[in-house]
Amino acid sequence: MPESTKFLLPEDAIPTHWINLVPDLPGEPLPPLSPRTGQPAGPDDLTPIFPMGLIAQEVSPEPEIPIPDPVREAYKLWRPTPLFRAHRLERALGTKARIFYKYEGVSPAGSHKPNTAIPQAYENAQAGIRKLATETGAGQWGSSLAFACSLFGLECEVFMVGSSYDQKPYRRSMMETWGASVHRSPSDRTEAGRSQAEHDTGSLGIAISEAVEVAAQDPSCNYALGSVLNHVLLHQTVIGQEAIAQLEEADARPDVIIGCVGGGSNFAGLVFPFLRRGDDVKIVAAEPAACPTLTRGVYSYDYGDTVGMTPLMPMYTLGHDFVPPPVHAGGLRYHGDAPMVCALVRAGRIEARAYKQNETFEAAVRFARAEGIIPAPEPAHAIRAVIEEASDGEEKTILFGLCGHGHFDLAAYDAYLAGRLEDPEFSEADLDAALARLPEAPAIA
Amino acid sequence: MPESTKFLLPEDAIPTHWINLVPDLPGEPLPPLSPRTGQPAGPDDLTPIFPMGLIAQEVSPEPEIPIPDPVREAYKLWRPTPLFRAHRLERALGTKARIFYKYEGVSPAGSHKPNTAIPQAYENAQAGIRKLATETGAGQWGSSLAFACSLFGLECEVFMVGSSYDQKPYRRSMMETWGASVHRSPSDRTEAGRSQAEHDTGSLGIAISEAVEVAAQDPSCNYALGSVLNHVLLHQTVIGQEAIAQLEEADARPDVIIGCVGGGSNFAGLVFPFLRRGDDVKIVAAEPAACPTLTRGVYSYDYGDTVGMTPLMPMYTLGHDFVPPPVHAGGLRYHGDAPMVCALVRAGRIEARAYKQNETFEAAVRFARAEGIIPAPEPAHAIRAVIEEASDGEEKTILFGLCGHGHFDLAAYDAYLAGRLEDPEFSEADLDAALARLPEAPAIA
Repeated sequence: MPESTKFLLPEDAIPTHWINLVPDLPGEPLPPLSPRTGQPAGPDDLTPIFPMGLIAQEVSPEPEIPIPDPVREAYKLWRPTPLFRAHRLERALGTKARIFYKYEGVSPAGSHKPNTAIPQAYENAQAGIRKLATETGAGQWGSSLAFACSLFGLECEVFMVGSSYDQKPYRRSMMETWGASVHRSPSDRTEAGRSQAEHDTGSLGIAISEAVEVAAQDPSCNYALGSVLNHVLLHQTVIGQEAIAQLEEADARPDVIIGCVGGGSNFAGLVFPFLRRGDDVKIVAAEPAACPTLTRGVYSYDYGDTVGMTPLMPMYTLGHDFVPPPVHAGGLRYHGDAPMVCALVRAGRIEARAYKQNETFEAAVRFARAEGIIPAPEPAHAIRAVIEEASDGEEKTILFGLCGHGHFDLAAYDAYLAGRLEDPEFSEADLDAALARLPEAPAIA
Repeated sequence: MPESTKFLLPEDAIPTHWINLVPDLPGEPLPPLSPRTGQPAGPDDLTPIFPMGLIAQEVSPEPEIPIPDPVREAYKLWRPTPLFRAHRLERALGTKARIFYKYEGVSPAGSHKPNTAIPQAYENAQAGIRKLATETGAGQWGSSLAFACSLFGLECEVFMVGSSYDQKPYRRSMMETWGASVHRSPSDRTEAGRSQAEHDTGSLGIAISEAVEVAAQDPSCNYALGSVLNHVLLHQTVIGQEAIAQLEEADARPDVIIGCVGGGSNFAGLVFPFLRRGDDVKIVAAEPAACPTLTRGVYSYDYGDTVGMTPLMPMYTLGHDFVPPPVHAGGLRYHGDAPMVCALVRAGRIEARAYKQNETFEAAVRFARAEGIIPAPEPAHAIRAVIEEASDGEEKTILFGLCGHGHFDLAAYDAYLAGRLEDPEFSEADLDAALARLPEAPAIA
């Protein structure tokens, strides 16, 4: 028989620690700033909505943080995830490159998001919290948190962006199957929602405001975020740690690592363990041309949300109230990126590339017809970059993150196959206007 | 850490042979009968629509049949599938039973169906066939065959029951993503379709007729069936063989094995290897009360399809033109069952139980909230039986088949959670009328 297709690990190979890349980052870390005072934000700014266990992880300078046993137990429901060698894609491309992909779509929610939903639910349950509130766009994060809450006996309240609530009813059904209650945002449950009632289709910014408001007002309820923050990236590093062990089994070392970047958590989770190991490896971040934060944004302090309730973070941003044109990769439609990922792009350690919607679906269909798995629109961006990298005639080893399946995105495939899919351009004028509204903050050297 | 949650096998543990239970069945096997002559049907009756490689498997008396290497290579895309210990469900039920489940939803198409789609596509490609035609109801089989055809370079033409085509557009999109062409049945592509144009919502019977017509008229095109026939059950025995190896790793032997039965292929695939081993184990087949073939049907020769084009097979049947009331478990809405499974029920080796729709969804939601995976409506019937078996206070080991996920069935969960799900009863009068229309055939002793 030819070489292996899948590389599996036993359950006891689930990592025992998360990798915190903060001590490895170039230069001194830039602190987040309080939106009220403009001064560095401390743990106290976060206690109304996060438990101390997570705040401690958020600000930790330690290089490794132990994974609690109950979290490792819950990870066993789907981890370690498989690493695949893409033999059939390689043959279809006629490439000399060896291509591997780490597949996170085997989780019950279908993506990498439960890697952080589980420890977030666990830490909140430990702290005596009874309920978590969150927002969700396309529904990947909301369904992952609903799943995690069902395992730890927490209630879960999700504010789902109105347009997604209407267009993706099955993600809502999934959350409800796991016991969550789901509100169409803007809702009449919150002041933020009522004040935005005229924006009927909603936005991630409004949904965040609603969830934060619910959490801030109820002492037994906290808020949970699915990307961007340090502790979220931390939790995702199980991905890269497993990939390192699996590539050793395959007797391979990557020359190139590729992931898609929205908030940056699946990307960081795959890449950071290789950076910690000190690998001399090319790293490529793939993003949508319709929301090109890393390739077109400015490096500046900006709010994490649209309405300016969160601390200011140092990041590449298109402006906190920039509204990206609609693309099916909802998970990549964020105006900024995780500060840790941005610091590495800024330092030249990560190369960013932007792709148009149709070329990513072309890559995804090619992948599906070779490898079987139908990718979510987000990792389709990574696949596009992989095909590019594999087409230069060179022998090399490529690793990429296939962070989720596309079972809830088939309307987008339908549009692509019917030739009805658009390549929306973002507006330069909108970008200029949004950048002019950046908050006042210290310039970053 | 507590006991293992998942039992995985390496790729070289993919079985090398399929298990053919024909020689183990009680009594002499009853031959299928030609629909034209009423005489035993031979291989020649099948050559217009099946390749000799599959016909040889269909009629083989050999106890084991080797799996071709290219089929094992393709199986590696998702096999071996995991066996889970349902620790969290056990705790939620407060049971003394140990519960294991074999999960087939990790295949790219989301169910056990690719286990037979792959060897069917392979044998047809080997025979120089260029295209496969088939029917599909809810879409599980059609998408599995589309996936398999994409791997072996075959065209795939699927006739999808009109009502499903309208209600489940995403299964169609999935088939098209893998390159298949999908027709709403009844279509104007075939005489059968045109003659049934007044039945606009279609039926599995009409869709079968359309696919068989296309295959019979085009020498480069064959037909493929996803259940019932001996060679299909044969291909599914990889499930039970892997489960035996995994339970050995878990140091467990099942006292009870439970599966859902529609045509019978996932059930047979799980159970037959344990029967071959001679296990003294209770075996339970779970079916819908709305289509109770094994619990209410008569054991008789009947057509496999609605319009009477297929050979007559000895089976429990509700009558070939009995139309079961609509339930979401579309894969269990078949008027008969695989002859091999029926022979074992007839001999008392398998116990059949029928469940109403709401009680199966109640079980499925309980399962999802404990174990994470959202089951398809078909295996929800098995889960219902598992909960029953686990609730008698006895220590025992239960194994069941979780043959697919419910990612394309969330509208049904929605209806259940909203209290809108019905428990349709089948009509005694319709049953009596359908049984009165059974074809003339020798009585079975």
